[in-house]
Amino acid sequence: MLEDRIIAPPPEGLEAQLSVRLGEKTMPPGALGRVGALAIALGCAQHRERPVAAPAEALLFAADHGLVEEGVSAWPQAVTALMVETLAAGHAAAPVLARAVGARLTVIDVGVASPYRSPPPGLVGARIRSGSRNAAREDALTEWEVRGALEAGAAAAEAALARGALVIVPGEMGIGNTASAALLAHAVAGIDLDALAGPGAGLDASGVERKRGVLARAAARRPGPLAPSTALEAFGGLEIAAMAGAMIAGGAGRAAIVVDGFIATCAALLALTARPVVRSSLIFAHRSAEPGHRLMLDHIGAEPLLDLGLRLGEGTGGLLALPLLSAAAAVLEEMATFESAGIAGP
Amino acid sequence: MLEDRIIAPPPEGLEAQLSVRLGEKTMPPGALGRVGALAIALGCAQHRERPVAAPAEALLFAADHGLVEEGVSAWPQAVTALMVETLAAGHAAAPVLARAVGARLTVIDVGVASPYRSPPPGLVGARIRSGSRNAAREDALTEWEVRGALEAGAAAAEAALARGALVIVPGEMGIGNTASAALLAHAVAGIDLDALAGPGAGLDASGVERKRGVLARAAARRPGPLAPSTALEAFGGLEIAAMAGAMIAGGAGRAAIVVDGFIATCAALLALTARPVVRSSLIFAHRSAEPGHRLMLDHIGAEPLLDLGLRLGEGTGGLLALPLLSAAAAVLEEMATFESAGIAGP
Repeated sequence: MLEDRIIAPPPEGLEAQLSVRLGEKTMPPGALGRVGALAIALGCAQHRERPVAAPAEALLFAADHGLVEEGVSAWPQAVTALMVETLAAGHAAAPVLARAVGARLTVIDVGVASPYRSPPPGLVGARIRSGSRNAAREDALTEWEVRGALEAGAAAAEAALARGALVIVPGEMGIGNTASAALLAHAVAGIDLDALAGPGAGLDASGVERKRGVLARAAARRPGPLAPSTALEAFGGLEIAAMAGAMIAGGAGRAAIVVDGFIATCAALLALTARPVVRSSLIFAHRSAEPGHRLMLDHIGAEPLLDLGLRLGEGTGGLLALPLLSAAAAVLEEMATFESAGIAGP
Repeated sequence: MLEDRIIAPPPEGLEAQLSVRLGEKTMPPGALGRVGALAIALGCAQHRERPVAAPAEALLFAADHGLVEEGVSAWPQAVTALMVETLAAGHAAAPVLARAVGARLTVIDVGVASPYRSPPPGLVGARIRSGSRNAAREDALTEWEVRGALEAGAAAAEAALARGALVIVPGEMGIGNTASAALLAHAVAGIDLDALAGPGAGLDASGVERKRGVLARAAARRPGPLAPSTALEAFGGLEIAAMAGAMIAGGAGRAAIVVDGFIATCAALLALTARPVVRSSLIFAHRSAEPGHRLMLDHIGAEPLLDLGLRLGEGTGGLLALPLLSAAAAVLEEMATFESAGIAGP
């Protein structure tokens, strides 16, 4: 997918060079723990000897899911459009956190089903269709709808790159999207479907049981393993496809891609399956409270930076991790070396 | 100790009020996980319905330890003064991180042993004595030296409060201070001394063994349980005493106190033992890579926000947690409620 976006691996020797520079700083070797490792990862993602954490931009893709008809969410489908309005107005969690960390935020409608009460300010309209079809009964998307969503995500990332973004945080809003993400991760990576089915935005135990039944029916309709594009056709997720497209185009543009929680990690799984080279562009931000997230992270071999029990989506975990990127870049850029401080090294 | 600094518990009903406000925000209940809990803790620490994360000030207390004569550190004592110079010049990890997160930073010499090559700019001189005595052989400090260090810490916190600080991050620099902190935590809280003895700033396995032997000799000289002031006399830590004093005076001044790693948590243990009411002022920032840190945190019943494998000191973990405080305060202050967004609640 997105065949014309070429992702180059980090330049040879860059990782070693960053590691040597970090080792010269006035602190015991490894004393900054994962912040040191993050500085190196950020440099490799950006192909920069002097990585930076800004400008950063969150791209929030919104879409609806026909699967919601089957009762897989604690919230009605209409909430997606209402939350897009609240996000675009700057009053939901993501824009509040984006302001707190100094990131830009763009909301892109790639497939919301309900009408807006009034035009959300600044919303990018890229609606492929008004919600996906019900994946428990039929394929959620056509081949062309999937391609359109991937391209919409790539275009959003390229617009952010054109605005100067060097860090991109793909995020999402879509009632029911933990259900689609679970189906996708099962189909593409073979992760146990029951283990991937969690409470999402607030199902109780009987709700999770019902969700498991619906997911089992949908998965039985299109048994895996499936290629990423085929899985997206089968189970949908216009916003998940868009996030995967944004990751690939963002990586091709040498932005660091900060991966949020359950849904974003599913998108990363799709992007990685299609294009393993994107791995060096990805920085995993946090471990979601959604139980299946751990399984996806283990499959990828990623250890996220934060573990704060978030289960909100909207890129919130990615945004909360951005100050750590700033800190990591500052350490590499501003700290004295043992030599410059006139201290004998370790 | 510090008898005239009165710490009031948070006003009755404040915690419940903050919790209700958080529940009205446009997100599933508890969806921000520990960030939500942090907003409530910050409000309780500051006695504010509208908690804030700024102005924030790091207070770095520096001192030396006679125990270093026994070979308990991977670094020579002279490094304390050299690092104070680097800190004051703004080129060590802590000032770099302080700038990255927008915090002020003040360095206070409460007992460095070595002379400076040139006067460190902005350094607050409050030297009680040039390093503590060797606690393996004799009491490290007199009663009056301990009192002086506690008061120096309190005075530094009160100066920060006078500059407007609403968040205070006590930090430290002192070659050998993981050894003193281990002795203090053992003496005051009965935590196993061998388990508290770790690599500090870089001891290898045989170095840790040697450190264990030295600590056992020192502890045998003054068996516990000891009161906090008595323990400080026995085992020293002018900077550790100062941090405890800063925590008590900062708490009395209704600043939120962000507790850094191993040494700062030892100071918190002393402050909490003397004045349990200070608990609601404390926000634990991160879990240090120093193995004994977990034991101190368990004793206090604290679960820190970050776990990034840091083992640097200088308040660096506390500084890295400050953006989470900003995020938590912004969520409470800026997010829409379900009602204001016109969305039916959960």
